[in-house]
Amino acid sequence: MIGEIIAIGDELISGRIANTTSGFAARHLFAAGHDIYAMHTIGDNPRLIGEVLKRAIKRVDFVLVTGGLGSTTDDMTNEAVAEALHRSPTLHSDILKRIREHLGHDHAPGNLEKMAWLPRGAEPLNDKARMAGYLLVHDGVPIFFLPGVPYQMRELLQAHVLPKLAGWKGNHHRVKQRVYRTFGLPETVINNRLLDLEQQNSVHVGYYPVGCEVHVSLTVLEENRQAAEEKFIAADQTITRALGDALYGIDQESLPSVVGKLLLQGNRQLSVAESCTGGLIGKRLTEVAGSSDWFAGGVIAYSNHLKEILLGVDRDLLANYGAVSEQVALAMAARLSERIQTDMTVSVTGIAGPGGGSEEKPVGTVYIGLLHQNKVSAQLYHFTGNRSRIREKTACTALDTVRRALLFDSEKEDF
Amino acid sequence: MIGEIIAIGDELISGRIANTTSGFAARHLFAAGHDIYAMHTIGDNPRLIGEVLKRAIKRVDFVLVTGGLGSTTDDMTNEAVAEALHRSPTLHSDILKRIREHLGHDHAPGNLEKMAWLPRGAEPLNDKARMAGYLLVHDGVPIFFLPGVPYQMRELLQAHVLPKLAGWKGNHHRVKQRVYRTFGLPETVINNRLLDLEQQNSVHVGYYPVGCEVHVSLTVLEENRQAAEEKFIAADQTITRALGDALYGIDQESLPSVVGKLLLQGNRQLSVAESCTGGLIGKRLTEVAGSSDWFAGGVIAYSNHLKEILLGVDRDLLANYGAVSEQVALAMAARLSERIQTDMTVSVTGIAGPGGGSEEKPVGTVYIGLLHQNKVSAQLYHFTGNRSRIREKTACTALDTVRRALLFDSEKEDF
Repeated sequence: MIGEIIAIGDELISGRIANTTSGFAARHLFAAGHDIYAMHTIGDNPRLIGEVLKRAIKRVDFVLVTGGLGSTTDDMTNEAVAEALHRSPTLHSDILKRIREHLGHDHAPGNLEKMAWLPRGAEPLNDKARMAGYLLVHDGVPIFFLPGVPYQMRELLQAHVLPKLAGWKGNHHRVKQRVYRTFGLPETVINNRLLDLEQQNSVHVGYYPVGCEVHVSLTVLEENRQAAEEKFIAADQTITRALGDALYGIDQESLPSVVGKLLLQGNRQLSVAESCTGGLIGKRLTEVAGSSDWFAGGVIAYSNHLKEILLGVDRDLLANYGAVSEQVALAMAARLSERIQTDMTVSVTGIAGPGGGSEEKPVGTVYIGLLHQNKVSAQLYHFTGNRSRIREKTACTALDTVRRALLFDSEKEDF
Repeated sequence: MIGEIIAIGDELISGRIANTTSGFAARHLFAAGHDIYAMHTIGDNPRLIGEVLKRAIKRVDFVLVTGGLGSTTDDMTNEAVAEALHRSPTLHSDILKRIREHLGHDHAPGNLEKMAWLPRGAEPLNDKARMAGYLLVHDGVPIFFLPGVPYQMRELLQAHVLPKLAGWKGNHHRVKQRVYRTFGLPETVINNRLLDLEQQNSVHVGYYPVGCEVHVSLTVLEENRQAAEEKFIAADQTITRALGDALYGIDQESLPSVVGKLLLQGNRQLSVAESCTGGLIGKRLTEVAGSSDWFAGGVIAYSNHLKEILLGVDRDLLANYGAVSEQVALAMAARLSERIQTDMTVSVTGIAGPGGGSEEKPVGTVYIGLLHQNKVSAQLYHFTGNRSRIREKTACTALDTVRRALLFDSEKEDF
């Protein structure tokens, strides 16, 4: 199907907030086999909202509208749509009730009611009051209205919009798709390895750098179910082979969730000793629900004092080699593991910048240590980029170090 | 002046490449006192390019078009513009000559000539051949055509577009703006407090939820410099009063950077004892460059074992009250502080979900403890949302707890 995306919000046209939702939606709609005709970003301007929406309805098969559904006076999408499409605002008392329940009775300022007045014919997408969002079918064209708040928009797009469009009348394509998540190979190298596959009819390959990772999407679009299935299996094999062990997961798997799965399989507990990442590795591991089954915790040893007191790193070692050294990375992993008796400990110590660099150890110098099967090792890295990028690369590399060590174990067990 | 931005490229509407240039342009144009009426992203589709461009020319004072100026077959902007505005393509032999010089004689594929054929009336912006880009004034409306390559677009925008618009006849506005960052007040409450201000002429107030925070933007647009200044000062006072101590920072300040500033002023070192946030608080604090001056580190005590071994929380306390309890939050802060001798320690223990909740302690139950000036206290919270939201709210609230304690100190010192 062919669609248009309309993002609404004064904060977007002033450039104060980057519009990340339209690109996200386009990517997922495209991956699901749809084409985007145009994307518009406009302010909270009722006349223009109506004008852009009416034009879109005339020329495409579906429309996605994000933003302007909130409770403040500058949110005007519902009023604009009611006016432009001649669908008078209708009170959804169930929504109002849920908003009130959600916020408690003491706390329901009058203007929250605004969120419960939707254009006539609107079908709310979600029965949780805190998330606005509805479908309106006008002249046979489905128009999805989603909140501009990125995480809400993403959740509703994936849970409601994509499934509804996949089942829409007139949409006959069979789509098979998969996302391959990789760490460790540059996008251009992956691209070169998959050039032949890209040339095939009805096979579409996309490359998306996401943080330190590269995600590869495969979409097969065929009218015939069996043809789709066969093409997909062949393409999947080609991609899996091309990516090798840089491929860490499929679809929704994340690097920390894969690390967790491998730890559980090996019946191991992981701990962390973090310096320059300051908690980022622990944060990413504990994003995974149920991580307490395989993650114990650890120490944020940001100062040298804490490296001594909490980790038990020898003061002389710190004085002789410096906090950012192979010796200290090894000691951080070994001492913490002794102290708390976990099976695996990963340690990082490095210079994230912007200050703290020297000729001998420039910004981006990072040591990653690993205690695993009673052996301790450390590896030196030179990362580039700003403070945030260096910390992110350090965290990803530390997670991938754990993943590869666990993979290697499980491969050995296979023999 | 009021303008529209049109970004052209198939790679943008498939979401394969994020459109960062439009947001960049909007931000710089807005900061220079212009308003953006709408931004469009469309594919390399000549008919649509013409249609969107002609509509924009009719309703705004200037138009910025990016992308599709290159030499490959899918670059169609020049042809589309020539056709839509009835301005036949004209060869700019000087451009062609410079392209050839720049690339050397061996390397001038036929289609590079394409870049030298511009719509009649086009004035190239830049005399370096490698950068396409021109100004076309049509029906009195300046239309700037820039390359889609981000760094080229940015360079030409700043070096040519902004200066040309600043000197354009009919442009007289003065702009003053500021962003107010708050934590702790719902968007609707802030909105209610600022309703009167919103009604004032030439004052524009925007509300933006960003994570757990609400940012309020103030923009004053006046023809007269002194009037702009006076309105801005008055509005700034109104907003500052209305936000009270929920206002933590201005413009680029972040909650962790403000906490750091207050710690430095009070000559204090902070440490953290994190359970359900798993390192998130440490991660946010160490995002701030120079955080080692006021942040020592701490413990990620995710398991009960680590709460005992690394923090020294009494085993009986954990057994009698449970890990998520006021008693344990107090002990986590107190024991860590004793052990590592920092002035301030913030502790968190809670149930981020989705599992682990009970009737007595449902998902979202969080205790935040604080050791400060040798006194330890703890506060119970009930946060809502998914795992990620609960952790984010916990981290923000912990940071704000530290901020408020430090603010209170500095206010006492004033007396």
